[in-house]
Amino acid sequence: MTDTKIQVIPLGGVGEFGMNMMALRYGDDIIVIDSGMMFPEAELLGVDFVTPDLTYLIENRQHVRALFLTHGHEDHIGSVAFFLAELNVPVYGTAFTLALVERRMDEYEFEEDVDFKIVKPKQKVTVGPFQVEFIHVTHSIVSALALAITTPLGVIIHTGDFKVDPTPTDNELFDLHTLAAYGQRGVLLLMSDSTNSDRPGYSESERAVRPRMEDVFNRAERRLFISSFSSSIHRLQQIIDLSHEFGRKVAIVGRSMGNVTEIAHNLGLLSIPDGVLIRPQDVMNAPANKVTVMIAGTQGEPMSALSRVAVNSHKHLSVEIGDTVVLSSRIIPGNEKNIFRMIDHLSRRGADVLYGTMNPPIHVSGHGSVEELRLVLNLVRPKYFMPVHGEYRQLAKHARLAEHLRESGLEESFVLETGDVLEIDSRGARKNGRVTVGRVCIDSGVVDEVVGDMVIRDRRHLAEDGIVLIIIAINKLTGRVEAPPEVVARGFASDDASELMKNAKQVVAKTLEGSSNEERMDWGVMKEKVRADVKRYISKHTQRRPLIMPVILEI
Amino acid sequence: MTDTKIQVIPLGGVGEFGMNMMALRYGDDIIVIDSGMMFPEAELLGVDFVTPDLTYLIENRQHVRALFLTHGHEDHIGSVAFFLAELNVPVYGTAFTLALVERRMDEYEFEEDVDFKIVKPKQKVTVGPFQVEFIHVTHSIVSALALAITTPLGVIIHTGDFKVDPTPTDNELFDLHTLAAYGQRGVLLLMSDSTNSDRPGYSESERAVRPRMEDVFNRAERRLFISSFSSSIHRLQQIIDLSHEFGRKVAIVGRSMGNVTEIAHNLGLLSIPDGVLIRPQDVMNAPANKVTVMIAGTQGEPMSALSRVAVNSHKHLSVEIGDTVVLSSRIIPGNEKNIFRMIDHLSRRGADVLYGTMNPPIHVSGHGSVEELRLVLNLVRPKYFMPVHGEYRQLAKHARLAEHLRESGLEESFVLETGDVLEIDSRGARKNGRVTVGRVCIDSGVVDEVVGDMVIRDRRHLAEDGIVLIIIAINKLTGRVEAPPEVVARGFASDDASELMKNAKQVVAKTLEGSSNEERMDWGVMKEKVRADVKRYISKHTQRRPLIMPVILEI
Repeated sequence: MTDTKIQVIPLGGVGEFGMNMMALRYGDDIIVIDSGMMFPEAELLGVDFVTPDLTYLIENRQHVRALFLTHGHEDHIGSVAFFLAELNVPVYGTAFTLALVERRMDEYEFEEDVDFKIVKPKQKVTVGPFQVEFIHVTHSIVSALALAITTPLGVIIHTGDFKVDPTPTDNELFDLHTLAAYGQRGVLLLMSDSTNSDRPGYSESERAVRPRMEDVFNRAERRLFISSFSSSIHRLQQIIDLSHEFGRKVAIVGRSMGNVTEIAHNLGLLSIPDGVLIRPQDVMNAPANKVTVMIAGTQGEPMSALSRVAVNSHKHLSVEIGDTVVLSSRIIPGNEKNIFRMIDHLSRRGADVLYGTMNPPIHVSGHGSVEELRLVLNLVRPKYFMPVHGEYRQLAKHARLAEHLRESGLEESFVLETGDVLEIDSRGARKNGRVTVGRVCIDSGVVDEVVGDMVIRDRRHLAEDGIVLIIIAINKLTGRVEAPPEVVARGFASDDASELMKNAKQVVAKTLEGSSNEERMDWGVMKEKVRADVKRYISKHTQRRPLIMPVILEI
Repeated sequence: MTDTKIQVIPLGGVGEFGMNMMALRYGDDIIVIDSGMMFPEAELLGVDFVTPDLTYLIENRQHVRALFLTHGHEDHIGSVAFFLAELNVPVYGTAFTLALVERRMDEYEFEEDVDFKIVKPKQKVTVGPFQVEFIHVTHSIVSALALAITTPLGVIIHTGDFKVDPTPTDNELFDLHTLAAYGQRGVLLLMSDSTNSDRPGYSESERAVRPRMEDVFNRAERRLFISSFSSSIHRLQQIIDLSHEFGRKVAIVGRSMGNVTEIAHNLGLLSIPDGVLIRPQDVMNAPANKVTVMIAGTQGEPMSALSRVAVNSHKHLSVEIGDTVVLSSRIIPGNEKNIFRMIDHLSRRGADVLYGTMNPPIHVSGHGSVEELRLVLNLVRPKYFMPVHGEYRQLAKHARLAEHLRESGLEESFVLETGDVLEIDSRGARKNGRVTVGRVCIDSGVVDEVVGDMVIRDRRHLAEDGIVLIIIAINKLTGRVEAPPEVVARGFASDDASELMKNAKQVVAKTLEGSSNEERMDWGVMKEKVRADVKRYISKHTQRRPLIMPVILEI
């Protein structure tokens, strides 16, 4: 035993949903697990996404040895570019995870050399005092890993995100054997996914989706639009397979869905039969009962492909009477209004929309429910337990679930929040102190921009770039604009402001005029359109990037 | 047969959630069914609630004969005071429904005489050409009615809100016999509740809650806080009964819960054993395992009793480690963030919180699912069908459900939206034209005010009373205020404004200072507190009631 201590420092994702990042420190060596982002709450108007504050890592720059990525979801890899711009250390992950990171790097035109280290399950790597073994887990994305990190004080297991899928569609089982072997030898600390700690029983296997989807294919008499998360390769594979069996061509619509399927296909993770794909622009000319559209936009994001189709403003596609639209996805809390508004639009166009509470649900969760969490707890039987990946209520529930392990060696569970430090040494474990953490708000600009050009907003200094409020009064029922738009600026020199705002008002008026009634009845869409247009106008005429907040008053 | 037509005119609640109101016109006679309100979407900042625009009824004032209330939920009775202020006609409803209306009238100090007509199931009344029979239905509130309206052209059935509960806790069964008898004789038009048309199967009986709640009582070792809708008398009865059996005293916390239970008790609808009640101020002194707190605030409303307890700012009550908190209610879409934030606060205080997806759910829906909707459709077998009470997607699903009745006499289903007119005459039925409808935004003031003093906002004329934006930057993780508040006014004469806004800024600063860290970390609470204080300040120093919109930037 040594007297050096281990510090476990969540820099994001603990007590909050998204932007997962965990630092492990032993003496002068730090490794980091995941570097995610989160989408802003509605309150953070004018911000595109949020990343963890890296202050702690930057202050300890010389000690940071490596970044380990458990899997390719945005809440685990979405801020890698920002991380590497500050800390260019080796990045470990599966081929698929790293390919997703690389794609994003290319989009950002990230120029520096990056040391990507492709790893496979059961492989072990040593970084300073840490020996890391990668363990295959089942999750809604392919190529997901747990990490078993051997340190001088004992083994730390981080599950990443997982479910225990007994029948995954690719037959790659969760490697419970390796987990059990570690448990047998003794584990110092377990960090485990808490997402579904408030769901009883077991999450259903991904394979459970198949017969339900098949039923949809059997009943669909015309075009079939299916939306799912673009990274859900298992799901996309099932949709492609069924389309092929039912003689339907498949169009892939939405940039990220196109990119991800291409990556998965190149890596041999997605099999696409020859001749099954057609281009989005050919969908409307193909026989309606011979086409499936895999389309992005499950969360009703106002500018997504499916939202555009819903208000009939998509370049290539329309929904027509008798079409079927399937949302094969969960509703992320906070997105309900956007999603339901989109479904209402699609229903008005005469589509049969299958979603959420419909039975049977054409979606299964990628995270383990209570019994799966218990299984992992029981196999690992850690000395200390720290629930991760969830909001406080889920962490607290997960900690309660572990209580029965008191008689099997569990000494204590620690419910931390982002920034708290868990310290472990030969005498025991305790919460001790906090490090600087926070949320960095990223404004990605009107079009994609390279990382260096993105504005990392310090929201503490509002006055610097100013604030522009746009107030629009729209009649919800008719889509009519009931009063001229108002534009209020704050933090601009007053002589600049009046002319600029007068013109901005005209920009807004023009955007409103140029939108269809249906778009105007959807404040989600209008807010995004107005924000983008005013942002473009102001960037062009000043060097400033104010926070732009459209406020729509529905009459 | 006559050539006069019937017009069916939804003035609210069709294609939108809340503020139900339906007008039926035959010749020169109009009756109205329900007069509800809705809570504003987050976009309608500065508005307390929303009521239907009464223009159509006011323009036809001399023809309006009566208001019929199906049951006492706010989305059916919440705007009766505003309705009667314009149109003082007789109001028909059950004793309980009318008592709830009367309580609200008293709160508003509504002075005019009102002609309340208490009715009972199976009773018939005649108003002009309409003969209305009241039919008992089961729902989450007691004393709920469907209406069978005999007109010269045929019978119109309006279900109100219902489920088909085979074992209601008060043993008052849904009167399916009367419904069936009308179906047997022939029904012209059925209007039926569509809330759960996207839920398969049957909704569970209210009685299904009992064993689950009993399990909670068995396991609770300390204080038990149970929150449910204050009008859910069946639910409250079960909680009182269980508390009595388990030797727990019951405190009723929250004004509306107090009022409603008193009304129900007086009408013999709620039985409260002698000596079971204790006062809220005595809860903390009673033995922790001998008390149940029935508390308002299931939706995480920032100023509700339960939200206050969650941030430890309630006058009498605290949650302590080991207490149990039960949310015996559904999550109304749009409230997720508020509710989850409240649950996180309660979890941080060490409470075990039972909610939503927990199994088994300690709540059942008050609205019928697909098979119950089918049962009612099959018993009534109408010639025309018009789904009501739901957003567009639910109406569309409900219309699809009725398709199998094509062979049993259904000629057509009509999916209307608020303001559309359905016209029926001897030749048939059709959508024909629209009437003026809209949303009237009510600003109820800082404290309760009488109806005449409430501001009915015409949001078209924003400039009239002005807009005040308050921008606050709070660190979400620490609750620290990171920058002085900014106050931006629009629509005030500029010499008034600068002094007023400077002072308003100080009001905001003081409110922020006077709040606990925990309150500051909860933007829902802070928005409400800041809004109330600034509103009070501005009302006091001007005669104006601007729209006050706090914008909290979380850092």
